[in-house]
Amino acid sequence: MPLKDRKILIVGLGLIGGSYAEALKRKGFEVGAVTRSQASVDYALEHGMIDCGTTEVTPGFLGRYDLVVFALYPHVLLDWVKKYQQFLKPGALLTDVTGVKSAVVYKVQEMLRDDLEFVGAHPMAGREVYGVRNADSSIFVGANYIVTPTPNNSEAAVQDIEELGRILGFSRISRLSPGKHDEMIGFLSQLTHCIAVGLMTCKDVGHMSAYTGDSFRDLTRIARINDEMWSELFLLNRDELLSQLDLFIGQMGTIRDAVSDGDAEKLRALMRLSTERRALFDK
Amino acid sequence: MPLKDRKILIVGLGLIGGSYAEALKRKGFEVGAVTRSQASVDYALEHGMIDCGTTEVTPGFLGRYDLVVFALYPHVLLDWVKKYQQFLKPGALLTDVTGVKSAVVYKVQEMLRDDLEFVGAHPMAGREVYGVRNADSSIFVGANYIVTPTPNNSEAAVQDIEELGRILGFSRISRLSPGKHDEMIGFLSQLTHCIAVGLMTCKDVGHMSAYTGDSFRDLTRIARINDEMWSELFLLNRDELLSQLDLFIGQMGTIRDAVSDGDAEKLRALMRLSTERRALFDK
Repeated sequence: MPLKDRKILIVGLGLIGGSYAEALKRKGFEVGAVTRSQASVDYALEHGMIDCGTTEVTPGFLGRYDLVVFALYPHVLLDWVKKYQQFLKPGALLTDVTGVKSAVVYKVQEMLRDDLEFVGAHPMAGREVYGVRNADSSIFVGANYIVTPTPNNSEAAVQDIEELGRILGFSRISRLSPGKHDEMIGFLSQLTHCIAVGLMTCKDVGHMSAYTGDSFRDLTRIARINDEMWSELFLLNRDELLSQLDLFIGQMGTIRDAVSDGDAEKLRALMRLSTERRALFDK
Repeated sequence: MPLKDRKILIVGLGLIGGSYAEALKRKGFEVGAVTRSQASVDYALEHGMIDCGTTEVTPGFLGRYDLVVFALYPHVLLDWVKKYQQFLKPGALLTDVTGVKSAVVYKVQEMLRDDLEFVGAHPMAGREVYGVRNADSSIFVGANYIVTPTPNNSEAAVQDIEELGRILGFSRISRLSPGKHDEMIGFLSQLTHCIAVGLMTCKDVGHMSAYTGDSFRDLTRIARINDEMWSELFLLNRDELLSQLDLFIGQMGTIRDAVSDGDAEKLRALMRLSTERRALFDK
């Protein structure tokens, strides 16, 4: 069945699930949702983000959908699949939005019914606010969408999930193995959030707030952080995140020693490398 | 003499010196400049940023100005004062734009003629580009201007330098002791630049550039850095910067250990503190 004719189920109507629903509904898809809160269902219905929604997981409801998107916390996702996959439509295609992949993709694929297929995906978009009330599909514009296939996946299913990313409006669609994805995210996203939290908590800066300029604000913007979600994502990617933290902490030690030694040449060499590398990002 | 009637000399026509000249000329001041490069003098004259300028330091030229602004690298500033203060007009008021204060202010005041007065100031504004060709007085709007008086200063002179900040267009004018200033700048500005350089140099991320999102870009924007200027500023503020680096590196170690121990509660407590503190900045 071509993607455009499939009925799509969103499991979990939060910020990302809601934004998926909004984007897909606008593109003409029939979109259903199952989520924990009736208020979220009501909001999504009132705002034309879904065709129907429920807080009750039933075989009759689940069995209607050809494509299922899990927008859940990782441990909830794994529990959900274990418990409810029996009700899913034969041949259904499954995907997710989780920010770590190795710890999710292989476990889901391992427990999955033979007639279902799960292709992991990570929409690299978000906001510092939560819930379906803040859903906004414009966050996908200009953003990356990464599909993380494994040898268990069929090329056709992977292409369908890539097509989903294009339909959602993502600007760049790419493929990475779950392991490469997790290394990349451990460095670019999880380490940067650790740095923001570390900077914001290492000193009480209340008395300095009148003097904060752009650089401090830029470095701590992401210090406002959903502690439940991010602590789970950090620990599911523990080994990669530790490697990245050790690299960074080691480099900060090198800078510290250069300052302590009054080694201007060492500092300047690091600054020139930094300037050269960062310049590539502005092109 | 009221500030508005004084003739102002800018020593050093770079980005900040040029921006001062532009702002002051627009406000109707008579502005002169002495700088190393004739091309900078020519550019400033052509663009109406100064009334006259020279690369030659002469008694006749220097002796005309009532207010002198040093926009020089710190070690150049100290050399300049030592060598040329003999030519300055009796009773002239001096100030600077240097990003560290203890290492500059006390040394200048110590060597200064009895009939001259130096009040340190730090315009907290800048760009990632250099030179008078990039001068732009609009960078002062919304920015902080900090005056760093010492017991050697007269209240009248400090007020004149505060008034200069208002005339330049700064949004917030405040006073700090040189020591308090250096602690604040060590944390808010120098540490953040160290972090950006550390993040940018701890790993070769060329292959990841397609995936970089806002958070990595925000944290590394200031990784493009003038190595000559910043290495000098770092080392002139060495003890304060080391204290701030140690605080931050210690806190990153705490986060690292929590990840390593799988201590979700510890991570969540740090994230909640971080979120709470950062929220104050958005008000």
